[in-house]
Amino acid sequence: MKTIKVFAPASVANVGCGFDVLGFALEEPGDELILRMKKSSGVTIKNESQYNSFSLNPEKNCAGKSLLKFLEAMNSKQGIEISFKKKIKPGSGIGSSAASATASVFAANELFGKPFSECELVKFAMAGEAIASGSEHADNVAPSLLGGFILIRSYSPLDLVKLPYPRKMFCALVQPDIEVKTIEARNILKKEIEFKKAIVQWGNVAGLISGLASSDFSLIGRSLEDVIVEPVRSGLIPGYFDVKKSAMDNGALGCNISGSGPSVFALCDDYHIAEKVGLWMQKAFEKKNIQCQKYVSRINHRGAIILN
Amino acid sequence: MKTIKVFAPASVANVGCGFDVLGFALEEPGDELILRMKKSSGVTIKNESQYNSFSLNPEKNCAGKSLLKFLEAMNSKQGIEISFKKKIKPGSGIGSSAASATASVFAANELFGKPFSECELVKFAMAGEAIASGSEHADNVAPSLLGGFILIRSYSPLDLVKLPYPRKMFCALVQPDIEVKTIEARNILKKEIEFKKAIVQWGNVAGLISGLASSDFSLIGRSLEDVIVEPVRSGLIPGYFDVKKSAMDNGALGCNISGSGPSVFALCDDYHIAEKVGLWMQKAFEKKNIQCQKYVSRINHRGAIILN
Repeated sequence: MKTIKVFAPASVANVGCGFDVLGFALEEPGDELILRMKKSSGVTIKNESQYNSFSLNPEKNCAGKSLLKFLEAMNSKQGIEISFKKKIKPGSGIGSSAASATASVFAANELFGKPFSECELVKFAMAGEAIASGSEHADNVAPSLLGGFILIRSYSPLDLVKLPYPRKMFCALVQPDIEVKTIEARNILKKEIEFKKAIVQWGNVAGLISGLASSDFSLIGRSLEDVIVEPVRSGLIPGYFDVKKSAMDNGALGCNISGSGPSVFALCDDYHIAEKVGLWMQKAFEKKNIQCQKYVSRINHRGAIILN
Repeated sequence: MKTIKVFAPASVANVGCGFDVLGFALEEPGDELILRMKKSSGVTIKNESQYNSFSLNPEKNCAGKSLLKFLEAMNSKQGIEISFKKKIKPGSGIGSSAASATASVFAANELFGKPFSECELVKFAMAGEAIASGSEHADNVAPSLLGGFILIRSYSPLDLVKLPYPRKMFCALVQPDIEVKTIEARNILKKEIEFKKAIVQWGNVAGLISGLASSDFSLIGRSLEDVIVEPVRSGLIPGYFDVKKSAMDNGALGCNISGSGPSVFALCDDYHIAEKVGLWMQKAFEKKNIQCQKYVSRINHRGAIILN
């Protein structure tokens, strides 16, 4: 029976100003999945990871749901068994459910001889990831699959753009030991926003894309501002502005909430600065008696990969 | 007495999705101004152009007001006399007042030995241009001064970014013989917008900037959509959607309202296509019994220039 082991990385969605349209992949952490073809139809799930907060019912599991979509589109009589080695903490704002969803469809596509395009795989994974987030979005799924810095220019039709970015750019990320549910973090956002603020936001989006394309680190830093979502969601992260100040005081280009939080990321133009920034962001959380995990990495340009 | 003759070009602001933050300069038309230093203080204005819809009182004239700001910042006892040769029709949506304002401060800066930076000149011109538009914005003034494709990343502080763009890109523009007052075109916009639509808009802004940087004409075209302002302002331009359809049917990458209208622009990846697109846009207006002027040009990379 055919088996495959794959890895799909964590990712940082929104990236400050680019709510729902921008995301980039991290080198670590990431989820590992083993997929086995089985003769019977449907999806079965085994959990071999330290986390067990998710359902093993495929209809209620991000990877399971994504695979059901995949198999349905294949019109396949064969099913798939998944073994999870989940290494990304759920509810931490770095695309934990997206990585599982991505890994599952990436692996299935390999097992079945690559019948689907990257864009189609992203759509299957979006359907799975919606179980965790409450709505279909691609700003974690797409970078986790494709690697790099991804723009979702449009959702209807889905239009993914691989953005150029400076290779010598580093992300410091701290993952505090508190949980923010993506659904709740979405529900506190207003359905209407001030036009004036939207203009500020798309000015920054334009600046960020331009800075990434031209390796203008100063412009990237100036553009990493979010006048719409950060003011609301920062309230869900104790000590957030102290953490941000620590990052900026220690040389980060910019700092913001990763996805729906509570993880906080900072972009830096030097590895040693990123290490220092990560350390001081960690210390700022510890001052609030919140332990956290720190990750420092380049942007992951590979995305999902086969491990065996 | 020192004299200088200058030219500042018309410009296309907003560029579809980038309301208030994007603009590019045209090769033609443009305003010509002659500035003479005078011993007495203040600004005097002479009109030598075919248009006379503007005040000759410097406090109420775009160029005059810009110059007063300039002279105030210089703390100058000398004044300036301006002679206008206005070639851009006022109220046509291609930065007529911005070109006059820009030309005046560009010329004065040359006369006084370049005491001010580009950014400072833009600020003086913004103050002048606000007389016509009712609010200070830079998306006509900045491209008219600097040339090229300009992003106003931020207004506070003013942060101008010269964007890379494909040199082999052409703009077809039609200027119908109707007037839309910028102030009125701003007043019909709502102060609150749907968050969902804002997300669509900044996805397109990101796509446009990325497409310009990578000369991806298809991406530029897909991104030239405006889900917020065009649906409202198109109502001020009779037959607008027929004009747009004519542009798209004849090979334009994208088509939208220039600034606050009524001019309509289309971007094209070929000169002959741009000529054809311009012609068919003109015909579409003529079907509504609206005569219009047509301009086809590359993006003007020089901005304001000295003529003598």
